[in-house]
Amino acid sequence: MTATPSVAIIGAGISGLTTGKQLADYGVAYTCFESSDRIGGNWAFGNPNGHSSAYRSLHIDTSRHQLSFRDFPMPEHYPDFPHHSQIKQYLEDYVDAFGLREAIEFENGVTHARRLDGGGWELTTQRGEQRRFDLLVVANGHHWDPRWPNFPGEFSGTEIHSHQYIDPRDPLDFAGKRILIVGLGNSAADIAVELSSKALETQVTLSTRSSAWIVPKYFAGQPADKYYKTSPHIPFAWQRKFAQVMQPFTAGRPEQYGLPTPNHKFFEAHPTQSVELPLRLGSGDVVAKGDIDRLDGDTVHFVDGTSDEFDIIIYATGYNITFPFFDEDVISAPDNQIDLYKRIFYPGMDDVVFAGFAQATPTLFPFVEAQTRIIGAYAVGKYVPPPVPTMHEVIASDTEFYTGHMLHRPRHTQQLDHFLYEHDLRTKELPAGYARAQQAGAPEWAGVDA
Amino acid sequence: MTATPSVAIIGAGISGLTTGKQLADYGVAYTCFESSDRIGGNWAFGNPNGHSSAYRSLHIDTSRHQLSFRDFPMPEHYPDFPHHSQIKQYLEDYVDAFGLREAIEFENGVTHARRLDGGGWELTTQRGEQRRFDLLVVANGHHWDPRWPNFPGEFSGTEIHSHQYIDPRDPLDFAGKRILIVGLGNSAADIAVELSSKALETQVTLSTRSSAWIVPKYFAGQPADKYYKTSPHIPFAWQRKFAQVMQPFTAGRPEQYGLPTPNHKFFEAHPTQSVELPLRLGSGDVVAKGDIDRLDGDTVHFVDGTSDEFDIIIYATGYNITFPFFDEDVISAPDNQIDLYKRIFYPGMDDVVFAGFAQATPTLFPFVEAQTRIIGAYAVGKYVPPPVPTMHEVIASDTEFYTGHMLHRPRHTQQLDHFLYEHDLRTKELPAGYARAQQAGAPEWAGVDA
Repeated sequence: MTATPSVAIIGAGISGLTTGKQLADYGVAYTCFESSDRIGGNWAFGNPNGHSSAYRSLHIDTSRHQLSFRDFPMPEHYPDFPHHSQIKQYLEDYVDAFGLREAIEFENGVTHARRLDGGGWELTTQRGEQRRFDLLVVANGHHWDPRWPNFPGEFSGTEIHSHQYIDPRDPLDFAGKRILIVGLGNSAADIAVELSSKALETQVTLSTRSSAWIVPKYFAGQPADKYYKTSPHIPFAWQRKFAQVMQPFTAGRPEQYGLPTPNHKFFEAHPTQSVELPLRLGSGDVVAKGDIDRLDGDTVHFVDGTSDEFDIIIYATGYNITFPFFDEDVISAPDNQIDLYKRIFYPGMDDVVFAGFAQATPTLFPFVEAQTRIIGAYAVGKYVPPPVPTMHEVIASDTEFYTGHMLHRPRHTQQLDHFLYEHDLRTKELPAGYARAQQAGAPEWAGVDA
Repeated sequence: MTATPSVAIIGAGISGLTTGKQLADYGVAYTCFESSDRIGGNWAFGNPNGHSSAYRSLHIDTSRHQLSFRDFPMPEHYPDFPHHSQIKQYLEDYVDAFGLREAIEFENGVTHARRLDGGGWELTTQRGEQRRFDLLVVANGHHWDPRWPNFPGEFSGTEIHSHQYIDPRDPLDFAGKRILIVGLGNSAADIAVELSSKALETQVTLSTRSSAWIVPKYFAGQPADKYYKTSPHIPFAWQRKFAQVMQPFTAGRPEQYGLPTPNHKFFEAHPTQSVELPLRLGSGDVVAKGDIDRLDGDTVHFVDGTSDEFDIIIYATGYNITFPFFDEDVISAPDNQIDLYKRIFYPGMDDVVFAGFAQATPTLFPFVEAQTRIIGAYAVGKYVPPPVPTMHEVIASDTEFYTGHMLHRPRHTQQLDHFLYEHDLRTKELPAGYARAQQAGAPEWAGVDA
């Protein structure tokens, strides 16, 4: 038995890298298994492992002021909204600054994780090795396995998922085509704007089931998210109400530029950030429709009774949370549901933690960095989570708090306000976990071979 | 001698068509000479006469609510900001609705206009005919003759004017190129946005001498120009001051997204309308520079001492007012200066009127329609302009009123606030001109052959 576990991290994206950095800070050795030949995961445009959903023109929708890791500010010369290539470089710089590269085994992803009877995990890797670890950090991301909708009927044209979209000529030539984009998230908005340029002589229609509130990237000359900071000292519902009242004065109502009426109030679903989409709608370049009723050859019938013909459908319908290395009866996330204590601990399994499994508002970066503070403290026995029944109670109340007001959709199972989460971790959860560790004593680990 | 003149109109664009419609309403016969095979002038994308500056993706920067002719509303199904093809169709519909087509001689532009000794004009047309008219309406537009700047040195790459720009593949393939766009008007902003898409893998730099205030096309879900209406009942300077104070709360200061500090206050130069340019600047896709110092091979040196290499320069540097059919010593507009009474009458020549020669804010359409009310009344003797000395005095005071606060640039010689102009015409100038006509009697015309 040892005081410090042997640790494996699955994935060298944002979540895996920040966890590795925190473990190293605590002096915990770890091995990071990465299926690709490079770091960055989703932010490694054209990632050979197929796990990047970035398109060529992608800029992050959060300004660098909100985006930066708290312990590694983005360079001053970066623009307000960096390009994916700059995010990738930032992660490379992060890896170099903290010497994280040597702990990463590239092109040696985990293909299977088997839980050992006495605790700990036996991992099978791409190279066919069997490797054992006390503690497994799941950081394989949740924006790489495309979620496809299931509409009645058959479409005779080309169907792709936004995950595959690169630019107006790749993976196919979109010029001159009749294109239907399904969804109204950030990817849908970006792709609709890019493909609806009259220079491409396309016809672009956007179909949305729930519609969405559109928020600008800039307001009064400042990145709009500079104004966004939820306070832990004012009831969350009041803050939502205030945002709902103010919204029409900044970006207006969706109907004003031709979107369907949302089936939810502002902040009851993830808002879509786009400066350009309202303009494209208001310029007639993008036509908005409600939900799809059925597909029939090259014709798509909408629930409003109208129909139109298309050459291509792009499904910008989000992603599944998938753990291809777990047997499904051990750990899985059907309909993106997985109950994790503070989005980290799987109740009843003390040898696995999760990093980065939330749709954090405004962004994932500082959220996952906050998570690693608990993961690091847990690995060295300074933090202990509560007993399993308490975990389940807190999961239920946290879920109600963060998502109770949201539309019930796979997309929103993971919704979370970063500012409130980070405040809760820092002021309540970490001190409580420290106290539990001092009372109960630190856990011991089997000390399986790393 | 006759009471009604024979009338020739040069050009079947917005100005020529609205003048024709007004003359027809007054029962005045006219011939409209059009060098192209189609109506629409600037709004006939790809116009074979070379007089359209429209690019493929061009949408008008004024919303249809402000744009419509007062006697011919735009169709309800039109988007807020119509595409050039819809403007063209609107003009076609206008022509059909009022039966204007038969008075137009297509592919028979005026190549020379000679003033006759006893008054009236002898026109030479494309077909080589000589045609005589009592009254000449100059409506050949002022957005077709590219104004090129004159920087020291030679550029070894490709230089084009925004007039020639069609789309990212036409007139040349811009993909992957290092592009410098000179200017920061609406065309410069639109072209910079279109060419800076990361999907094209270009590098786009924008050079501006004066910088500009950027105003959005939408504010709080409404076309921003719906909020714009200058009042004739509040001093103009106060209204400018109010706009100057409010501007930072809507679109912010240009420096906030990396533009140089403007050398003028808001409304002291034509503002640039763009929702997208601030985002592109803030995303690092467009880099802004000040004025050019000199050209040297593929290198452009800027006045701030920096330099960079480029493959292509696009000069979005505006247009000359050119009358190719007038001998220069008869009528010309050096540096875009031409003194016209109410932008219509050339003092000392009562047989020529001008339509559409202003940079009207918010837009040309209702402005030129207002002008034709005077032109029509003049043609039938119901309106008479004041004596020549008075004309000169009023030209001086009007110029000071409309442009005294503006930067002194060829671009701003024609600047004019439509709401104040229209109010002046309707409440003062037309009644005064009616009174003068009743006192002096209607002018008589030589009655030269039409």
